[in-house]
Amino acid sequence: MTYLYDQPSDFAADAVAGFAAAHPTITQVHGGVVRASATPPGQPALVIGGGAGHYPAFSGWVGPGMAHGSPCGNVFASPSASQVYSVARNAENGGGVVLGFGNFAGDVLHFGLAAEKLRADGFDVRVVPVSDDVASSDQENRRDRRGIGGVLPVLKAVGAAIEDGADLDEAERIAAKANEATRSLGVAFDGCTLPGVDEPLFRVPEGILAVGMGIHGEPGVRDEPMGTAADVAALLVDGVLREEPARTTGGYDGRAAVILNGLGTVKYEEQFVVYNHVARLLAERDIVPVRPEVGEFVSSLDMAGLSLTLVFLDDELERLWTAPIDTPAFHRGIMPDIDRPLRDNFWELGDEPVPDSEEASRQSARRIADVIALFERVCAREEEELGRIDSVAGDGDHGQGMLLGSSGAADAARKAVSQDAGARTVLARSGEAWAESAGGTSGALWGAALVAAGNAVSDQEGVDQEALVGALDAAVETIGRLGGAKEGDKTMMDSALPFRRTLAASFTGQNAGEAIASAAAAAREAADATASITANKGRARVLGDKSLGTVDPGALSFAILMTELGEHLA
Amino acid sequence: MTYLYDQPSDFAADAVAGFAAAHPTITQVHGGVVRASATPPGQPALVIGGGAGHYPAFSGWVGPGMAHGSPCGNVFASPSASQVYSVARNAENGGGVVLGFGNFAGDVLHFGLAAEKLRADGFDVRVVPVSDDVASSDQENRRDRRGIGGVLPVLKAVGAAIEDGADLDEAERIAAKANEATRSLGVAFDGCTLPGVDEPLFRVPEGILAVGMGIHGEPGVRDEPMGTAADVAALLVDGVLREEPARTTGGYDGRAAVILNGLGTVKYEEQFVVYNHVARLLAERDIVPVRPEVGEFVSSLDMAGLSLTLVFLDDELERLWTAPIDTPAFHRGIMPDIDRPLRDNFWELGDEPVPDSEEASRQSARRIADVIALFERVCAREEEELGRIDSVAGDGDHGQGMLLGSSGAADAARKAVSQDAGARTVLARSGEAWAESAGGTSGALWGAALVAAGNAVSDQEGVDQEALVGALDAAVETIGRLGGAKEGDKTMMDSALPFRRTLAASFTGQNAGEAIASAAAAAREAADATASITANKGRARVLGDKSLGTVDPGALSFAILMTELGEHLA
Repeated sequence: MTYLYDQPSDFAADAVAGFAAAHPTITQVHGGVVRASATPPGQPALVIGGGAGHYPAFSGWVGPGMAHGSPCGNVFASPSASQVYSVARNAENGGGVVLGFGNFAGDVLHFGLAAEKLRADGFDVRVVPVSDDVASSDQENRRDRRGIGGVLPVLKAVGAAIEDGADLDEAERIAAKANEATRSLGVAFDGCTLPGVDEPLFRVPEGILAVGMGIHGEPGVRDEPMGTAADVAALLVDGVLREEPARTTGGYDGRAAVILNGLGTVKYEEQFVVYNHVARLLAERDIVPVRPEVGEFVSSLDMAGLSLTLVFLDDELERLWTAPIDTPAFHRGIMPDIDRPLRDNFWELGDEPVPDSEEASRQSARRIADVIALFERVCAREEEELGRIDSVAGDGDHGQGMLLGSSGAADAARKAVSQDAGARTVLARSGEAWAESAGGTSGALWGAALVAAGNAVSDQEGVDQEALVGALDAAVETIGRLGGAKEGDKTMMDSALPFRRTLAASFTGQNAGEAIASAAAAAREAADATASITANKGRARVLGDKSLGTVDPGALSFAILMTELGEHLA
Repeated sequence: MTYLYDQPSDFAADAVAGFAAAHPTITQVHGGVVRASATPPGQPALVIGGGAGHYPAFSGWVGPGMAHGSPCGNVFASPSASQVYSVARNAENGGGVVLGFGNFAGDVLHFGLAAEKLRADGFDVRVVPVSDDVASSDQENRRDRRGIGGVLPVLKAVGAAIEDGADLDEAERIAAKANEATRSLGVAFDGCTLPGVDEPLFRVPEGILAVGMGIHGEPGVRDEPMGTAADVAALLVDGVLREEPARTTGGYDGRAAVILNGLGTVKYEEQFVVYNHVARLLAERDIVPVRPEVGEFVSSLDMAGLSLTLVFLDDELERLWTAPIDTPAFHRGIMPDIDRPLRDNFWELGDEPVPDSEEASRQSARRIADVIALFERVCAREEEELGRIDSVAGDGDHGQGMLLGSSGAADAARKAVSQDAGARTVLARSGEAWAESAGGTSGALWGAALVAAGNAVSDQEGVDQEALVGALDAAVETIGRLGGAKEGDKTMMDSALPFRRTLAASFTGQNAGEAIASAAAAAREAADATASITANKGRARVLGDKSLGTVDPGALSFAILMTELGEHLA
């Protein structure tokens, strides 16, 4: 249960503000936090982040010896690309940027988009996802694994290397090496509840241990009856040590960083009881824990569970693991230069100038702003139902995400129109705002779609029927390309791709409204048909077969908005 | 819910072992932990402790800048006097001892008994209970208040002063001054569950905020409907600031240490959301937070709730609050001498030699050991029922405590008999073992009673009927003196005092068994009558009137054991 919040939708932002207020070494910037002291000139800036709800990950690790900044997303939702970009701009000081995060689809997408934008602006950027969760993929495909407790030692190694003088190439090498040496396994006993929501996001049946369940309730590898602390310790140690590397002279010789991580309601004394067994079992395997850590590092709101992480050390990784660090939530040793000068210059998300436009395009821009305002009203109307559908097999935030995204986009469109922006700029600003306001994967896709639609038109010419259909086609093409899913995967693609096909087939050059209405009807039919996709997806595996018979919320919301667009144009 | 344990009764001890295993700066000794490095010669040893279930309090604060050692009790039960004694002996290094703890009856009793024993051994000892919870008594009787979140800043001030060179007098002065300047208020939204127990120790009704509820579920001042984070922040700030002292030149001038403390399941982001309001409200009152702390400091297993602590600072208290500290769970700044030499000499609870005895007394000693073994069997038989009764208005551990105590006492008695101990020594050893094995208030009282009974007999003479009754009288007199309760307070006294009166009145010199049986009958009648005491006591205030009609478990267990004793002698 999450008890304390004001507006649930503001929870993550309020938490960042309070975190910054409580820590004089931290300064809040647009999208997250940075150190109050300047990044030393020429030093690579380590920017690490993810969704809220996991504190100390990631903002708690901003400080000398680890990160320079942390973009903070919504609860369990990746920060948007523009949040990542803003924090990176504030952390970068001539040495380029390392973007570190746990390997989840939304984070890969948003950090990747931010990297593109930073590179376009002339910054050197390296992207280092952490993938340590042995339960989420097999050893061969280990780079597809999720990032859980291992984000601490892997990203700490990068931060320590940078503190030691590593450049970007070296930081990237260390990230890859540390990630390769790190293995985690988690277990969960019960789920967690989002702020303002009455029911848990998911549950684990009483007396059951969900082995390998992820930090957002992603399905694990199996359920077992709950055992003693000794049983749980053995399960975790065995799971992680299944991939213990061979011992070599000068390489891994049995020393390992050990992190026992509580997810929220498994409290300290329980963790110590388990750690006592972990230490014994490691000793039996001739493994020496180096500076073990027992506590809460990558939490998951009030989820009940814990994870064990081992980093199989060589001399270099041991030196980085034990190196000094001085951050709000993680301390070790003495930082050589703990009193750093406070900075007073920050990059701010400014009102960049609106490009010149012609009246023909401005007229179209006003109509586009009307459509996006319509989307906002429709999303408000559908929020609850989309949330309900999403909660069956997902995390229940799709309705909220669509409303936040469309609402931010509508505001941005109105503002751009008031500044005499043309159609291209209105679409671009709306798209950036949608991605930023919504966060999450669907927010990124809708945002990128609007930006792509904008790129298909101009700020000079009006948007005629052909241009409108072309822009829609470009938008859906972008969704398909970035989303990476195929039809039948039970995602937005299941309605977006039939929409695109039908639109191309039925548009004759002058009947845009009609063609869009036909395409929307096809999309709706396809969305409804997702109910019959019985693929064993997502949390359905944990929850039984409740997702069978339920449509995909992303496919449905796409079809609903296109239907409204068709009616609006008719 | 507490999920992870092996034997529930070993939970606290296992946790201490795991804590020590995870922290190279910590060494486990009998009864708790001390620093692995020696206390600097002549420096007062700060020994702080309390029940388990509150980590980081108290063992997490053992290290340079704060404590030298921490006795660790059972879950929510004070460490026994002998645990406190052992840790103090291991921490003391020529500078005397400061015993610091939260002001709860069991802790006052056990730390007080340990102080007596240390003083008897020639050590200078100061006892500094912390009493910061404004909800637990009025301002005038503030030294009766419970100790909650304020134990951190008050005991940190003492540790910092000692690090600065304070002697015992100075450390005691700082403790009193810091305690006088510290105020806390807590709220709870739901209860916590002890290891191995299916039902929560207590509950807070859904949607209700229990204002002032203590860290073991002690009754608060009122229930309110649950509000927003802003409401909760306002309630806490208002409550604590109601006792803001006047501002003076050179004294308190508006600067305050601020600690927002989560009890277990109220997680970090929630706390930051609340802290953002706390910072705003304090600014409105022209109060400047000095190095605020937001996190978990005095937790309460998986209890849902949080507390706010303010220390109204002057220059001296500010210096102590911001002073460096390097402990497992609390870090600040740079300790001047962080690499201290490890120690290798520890005081151990040894098998002290058994005093010489005569056969007459040894015969009595064997009968006494039989009686204590009988007590153990009776306590095993009654464990569940005593626990059930205790759980209505107390914390449900009375049955377990009586069994642990009598079992430890029976073992010690058997061992002493096998070493040819006389009656006095057997009783003394049994009493020490009872207090140590049981912990808690009733454990201390039963332990002290057995020791007192021993002091009434000798290792030379046999225990005749007169000596037996005299020993029993001394035992009950001790219970009454140490327990500090009156008849009608619904405690063990309600049956112990009628027992003593009836025993004195009915013993004619030769009829000990008969007199004891009569006294036991009176005790049982009085115990049963406690059901009609409708005093609004303990958790009954929170739980409604469920305690009405329930007998006091301590009074009942006393009556049951005396009844068995009477039958055994008949």
